[in-house]
Amino acid sequence: MATKLLGKQTFALQTPPSFAGHACVAGRTEGDGPLRDSFDRIFPDPFMGEKSWEKAESALVTAAVTLALSKASLSPGNINCVFCGDLLNQCTATSFGIRGMGIPMFGVYGACSTMAESLALAALSVDGGFADNALAVTSSHFCSAERQFRTPLEYGGQRPPSAQRTVTASGAAILSAQGPGPYVTHVTPGRIVDNGITDANNMGAAMAPAAYDTLKAHFEDLGAGPEAYDLIVTGDLGAVGSEILRDFFAADGVDLGSRHADCGLLIFDRKKQDVHSGGSGCGCAASVLCGHLLNGIRAGRWRKILFTATGALLSPTTTMQGETVPSIACAVAISSTR
Amino acid sequence: MATKLLGKQTFALQTPPSFAGHACVAGRTEGDGPLRDSFDRIFPDPFMGEKSWEKAESALVTAAVTLALSKASLSPGNINCVFCGDLLNQCTATSFGIRGMGIPMFGVYGACSTMAESLALAALSVDGGFADNALAVTSSHFCSAERQFRTPLEYGGQRPPSAQRTVTASGAAILSAQGPGPYVTHVTPGRIVDNGITDANNMGAAMAPAAYDTLKAHFEDLGAGPEAYDLIVTGDLGAVGSEILRDFFAADGVDLGSRHADCGLLIFDRKKQDVHSGGSGCGCAASVLCGHLLNGIRAGRWRKILFTATGALLSPTTTMQGETVPSIACAVAISSTR
Repeated sequence: MATKLLGKQTFALQTPPSFAGHACVAGRTEGDGPLRDSFDRIFPDPFMGEKSWEKAESALVTAAVTLALSKASLSPGNINCVFCGDLLNQCTATSFGIRGMGIPMFGVYGACSTMAESLALAALSVDGGFADNALAVTSSHFCSAERQFRTPLEYGGQRPPSAQRTVTASGAAILSAQGPGPYVTHVTPGRIVDNGITDANNMGAAMAPAAYDTLKAHFEDLGAGPEAYDLIVTGDLGAVGSEILRDFFAADGVDLGSRHADCGLLIFDRKKQDVHSGGSGCGCAASVLCGHLLNGIRAGRWRKILFTATGALLSPTTTMQGETVPSIACAVAISSTR
Repeated sequence: MATKLLGKQTFALQTPPSFAGHACVAGRTEGDGPLRDSFDRIFPDPFMGEKSWEKAESALVTAAVTLALSKASLSPGNINCVFCGDLLNQCTATSFGIRGMGIPMFGVYGACSTMAESLALAALSVDGGFADNALAVTSSHFCSAERQFRTPLEYGGQRPPSAQRTVTASGAAILSAQGPGPYVTHVTPGRIVDNGITDANNMGAAMAPAAYDTLKAHFEDLGAGPEAYDLIVTGDLGAVGSEILRDFFAADGVDLGSRHADCGLLIFDRKKQDVHSGGSGCGCAASVLCGHLLNGIRAGRWRKILFTATGALLSPTTTMQGETVPSIACAVAISSTR
């Protein structure tokens, strides 16, 4: 038994896999934001030289994976499996982005929680002994998401302050059985939480209870509190959802305080950039993780972080049919030491 | 290391997980077909008493999971994780179908290969030691799929003979660390194969090369041929794709012969039912596996089967943008003995 179930829903990895390489690429608005120096490449052209935004998003994926492989000094043939997914219908951004690489693939879907989900499964596959190297990658693109989920860009629809801006970015990470770290030490997959929110322009409010549910389960399973981590980073609750999450913990007498950060708030400067409640999209948490966060651990800025990506499992169809927004959050603990 | 990588891309499970329970439910057309006696329940109403086909598909999922849990004498609280996905945009059929159950969830997407993918990951999670019980479930619904992928039903669009009919069904299987079998012994995840097919009405032709690629890798990794199995069952190549697959193997001097069957051909009687090239949809392979196939192993009809579900990773958007159809196949070996 290589991996052990801890408490109710946390998996404690017996031989924590090491990040062998990670990379992130982003678009112009992201490149204008506070994390600009953490992106490996910034592409000012939203079309990436392609004929559609969807193809551009796939090009972001290809770029992120190629850079991550290069940093890990690995070729696609060295990767035993890839876990990938995105927001586009039928997850085509990632599948088209990696289709030429010949890597055995497991497609995943966790909405904006996809990077945590794919990273979790990559970690489990390495610790389980069936992959020497496993890849996790996801993406999102402001223009392809707006077209698919909301209104044509040309329409110029107004959005309420609670709405978030889909990030144009992709992040890729390779986990290996051996290496100097950082390491994935624990995984807590999330349960679906649905508190009855029906406003598709207020995803933060819908997702905050899911983040709370997973974080609470994680702390209970470990018999520890938030102080076990230098940084608890959610992605992407935005301003509205982050406040709700802190309120939930405050009601339990727990102050998340400055230990808590949110990828959707880190990636943009809300005072200078017109991004409403912050960033969102699979590519947000993925690019913040594969740049800012992992670089920060390597630089000694943090020793242990709990990466908790959140997803709203709605579709335009379910919203039009009057459904509430089920949400989920997956937590992955990353440490500089095993 | 609980699980071992065999050859290039096959995972040999060290303690093969056992099917603790499995169930399948289907619609009227499927209930009129040759596998009618293998379905646990047949629902004649395509709306399942719900107000939309999408909600009806979720109801199929709930029904299949509830039955599988009951057969395994387990409650949702006993399931450590569920791997689920479907064809609807953002995979809402399965996430809405299980949202009330409180089971930690990993959403997956492999188009019509989803049942093999989710079963593979469930098996790996049990063998890896981080789940005592893991659930795999998927679904499809003729009406929700037609509305989303093709034309409104009322339009009555004509389809060519190479087209397949999306199956209305759901299949759920629970794998456990202990049990009397049948057992999942090997998993071969698939690589994306794209041979340039652009006709979205000829998915069998697009998917057959992917099935060939995965099966060939599986046989090479095991150092065995098709004769290692009593039944090699693809899902869902239909009539056109099945012939192409047999042709590929024939060119290698390998006769798949009567060892090969296809879920899309098993589920309907093409002489009596107006289903063109056969069945398709995540629910096809899932319901054939969780009824006909697993029941057949239990009854001693087959000792070893290789369940190889295939998926076409296209979307209506990629097709409209002139893209070819990337495909994938995931193989799961199931045996009556460990």
